[in-house]
Amino acid sequence: MTAMEQMGKRAKEAAAVLAVAGRKKNDALLAIAQALLSHSEEILKENQKDLENGKNAGLTPSLLDRLALSQERIAAMAEGVRQVAAMPDPIGTVLSGGVRPNGLEITKVRVPLGVIGIIFEARPNVTSDAAALCLKAGNAVILRGGKEAIYSNLAIAGVMREAVAQAGLPRDSVQLVEDTSRQSSVELMELTEYLDVLIPRGGAGLIKTVVEKSKVPVIETGVGNCHVYIDSDADLEMAASVVYNAKTSRPSVCNAIETILVHEAVAERFLPLVKKKLDEKKVELHGDEKTRGILGGCVIPAAEEDWVKEYLDYKLAVRVVPSMEEALRHIARYSSGHSECIITENYQKAREFTSRVDAAAVYVNASTRFTDGGEFGLGAEIGISTQKLHARGPMGLNELTSMKFIVLGSGQIR
Amino acid sequence: MTAMEQMGKRAKEAAAVLAVAGRKKNDALLAIAQALLSHSEEILKENQKDLENGKNAGLTPSLLDRLALSQERIAAMAEGVRQVAAMPDPIGTVLSGGVRPNGLEITKVRVPLGVIGIIFEARPNVTSDAAALCLKAGNAVILRGGKEAIYSNLAIAGVMREAVAQAGLPRDSVQLVEDTSRQSSVELMELTEYLDVLIPRGGAGLIKTVVEKSKVPVIETGVGNCHVYIDSDADLEMAASVVYNAKTSRPSVCNAIETILVHEAVAERFLPLVKKKLDEKKVELHGDEKTRGILGGCVIPAAEEDWVKEYLDYKLAVRVVPSMEEALRHIARYSSGHSECIITENYQKAREFTSRVDAAAVYVNASTRFTDGGEFGLGAEIGISTQKLHARGPMGLNELTSMKFIVLGSGQIR
Repeated sequence: MTAMEQMGKRAKEAAAVLAVAGRKKNDALLAIAQALLSHSEEILKENQKDLENGKNAGLTPSLLDRLALSQERIAAMAEGVRQVAAMPDPIGTVLSGGVRPNGLEITKVRVPLGVIGIIFEARPNVTSDAAALCLKAGNAVILRGGKEAIYSNLAIAGVMREAVAQAGLPRDSVQLVEDTSRQSSVELMELTEYLDVLIPRGGAGLIKTVVEKSKVPVIETGVGNCHVYIDSDADLEMAASVVYNAKTSRPSVCNAIETILVHEAVAERFLPLVKKKLDEKKVELHGDEKTRGILGGCVIPAAEEDWVKEYLDYKLAVRVVPSMEEALRHIARYSSGHSECIITENYQKAREFTSRVDAAAVYVNASTRFTDGGEFGLGAEIGISTQKLHARGPMGLNELTSMKFIVLGSGQIR
Repeated sequence: MTAMEQMGKRAKEAAAVLAVAGRKKNDALLAIAQALLSHSEEILKENQKDLENGKNAGLTPSLLDRLALSQERIAAMAEGVRQVAAMPDPIGTVLSGGVRPNGLEITKVRVPLGVIGIIFEARPNVTSDAAALCLKAGNAVILRGGKEAIYSNLAIAGVMREAVAQAGLPRDSVQLVEDTSRQSSVELMELTEYLDVLIPRGGAGLIKTVVEKSKVPVIETGVGNCHVYIDSDADLEMAASVVYNAKTSRPSVCNAIETILVHEAVAERFLPLVKKKLDEKKVELHGDEKTRGILGGCVIPAAEEDWVKEYLDYKLAVRVVPSMEEALRHIARYSSGHSECIITENYQKAREFTSRVDAAAVYVNASTRFTDGGEFGLGAEIGISTQKLHARGPMGLNELTSMKFIVLGSGQIR
């Protein structure tokens, strides 16, 4: 048995206990929150090692910022765990049920998934966030973070394991893979006997690799090539405000937009209006020929890759379309299935857009930035699923569960 | 673009139409049912070719029987399709929704999965059954059947495609892969750009291959290593009746049992009782030492593989256990997560068994043979899922769908 298989086996044993742990799971979460605070000094000390290694390795300032912890950030992590503890326990919820004509009483109840693997990049707060959600839903978790954050992650995971054990649950409810080589990712992706699901959290490259390589079922999260279509019947002031918000309020996140599609009937009025606003944040425009005809040479000519790429930056692709039909075709071709929006005052077109666009969230007249567990009223989330199996959109506690049928009889035979 | 990619592309285009096809889907299903009947002569003629090839290839009588069609069997296929047409359309169902404090109106609605691939073995009736369920749930389907049934499948798929087109929906809503080489299976398993899910239907070997090789998400169906645990507090007459039914009413199906675990306190009374009943059907017993001590030399000594194997035959593995705890351990180790049963009159043990056993269906005092979409009141099914992601247990129409969030606003920004 390899070291990874041993981790898997221990996780599976822990999961069997967690599945019936009831409110002890909350004791463990509160103990974790407390322990993160009381051990913050040592976590910060370990984080300092990562930061120094990061500086020596030449990480960019923005990467170093994502890596850096502080008393405040640790307090926020602890508060996040406390909020998860305060959420209702999804396990045991009766989803449906009834009595069959033969007297069998059948109920469908929510149960944990079992063992969840999470592969993530350099943000150490993911360690506590993700583990807390998995634990609350009764799952054991195996975390495999990036090498840049290994000292921080080990410290955080160590504190969590100790707290879980003190609350009377298996220490191996939370495990961190210490080996951050490529090999350990591969082993995790092949751990079909023990892992029920693998969730990659990070950039498009990481997610693509995991989706292609994993033999364990994967939930794909977070890649957002999102569009706003400005219809010929749009309120153009509203359209400019939504585009400005969806592009510039936080360009690095998956629910920010990357392309706008503008109906040709309003392009001449709308494009100068939206450009004026976007200029405030120095957004770089990549436009098709018609856009450049209207806005002039300041617009970079758009190439095929501009429709494909998730800029995650102050850049926006712009295309003028002759019809909603063409906008729908463009979206069907290039969308990553995350969040798509139409701006229109036309009832029929609003209905058609929402029914025909195939994405996790389809908007009329609102910023795509709302695609988020908290904003949707679903509570903390582990990511935004862009696939169609199992979970789609914000993945909260319910999406970290499975179900089973319980059948109570009195000797029925078939 | 390969031929398989072209099929995928056509399927995706068809799926976009099916997603908003509404009741036209029922028109298509009724047209299919009608067409199966009116073209039964030519289907039977093609089936005859498969049967002759099968005889020449030395297929067993039971395989030839599964392959054989008749007027009655075609009528049953048509009736099956009609029943699917009569079911309520799952698409568009509002699963949840409400208004957020900022005025955003968010609803979660059921939508099709998109394109479903089905890899199946020699039963031609799967062609119409599976295609009808996929179609009803708004999905395009690519079918890849076994080479033994290729002429029958081509005839059935041809009739279906024609009927779908006559009802005004895309002919490519239903496609059959003509190439039955191993290569075509591999290509289907790698068709990630177009396929949303792949469902293998057939024996354990087929399912294992698809689960291991596929890059497309797979829903694992149908492998059933099911157990009945006869507790020390069992009603032994009931136990014998349930075991007899669960083993012998149809041994070749996945919800039949393969092993019984008998509490040692009742083993001496129970084993002779159940053996007497099982002898009626000449069930071959494979027992551990204690079982052989009680029943004598007529019991074949059980080896490790007897606990692992899905016999699908008039064979039953028998083990005497010292406690429910040991029965739970045995089940956790060997169960395929399909259907598991306890026979007991003890309230506490019934509750503990149902909460701790991790399977799609967990029974108290009833035959595992009830794990079935129809018996559970869920309608026609495409298989029994034994995995925990997306669908578990009988997979009916709802399990062939996904969902999306529709967000209606009035200019909200974040």
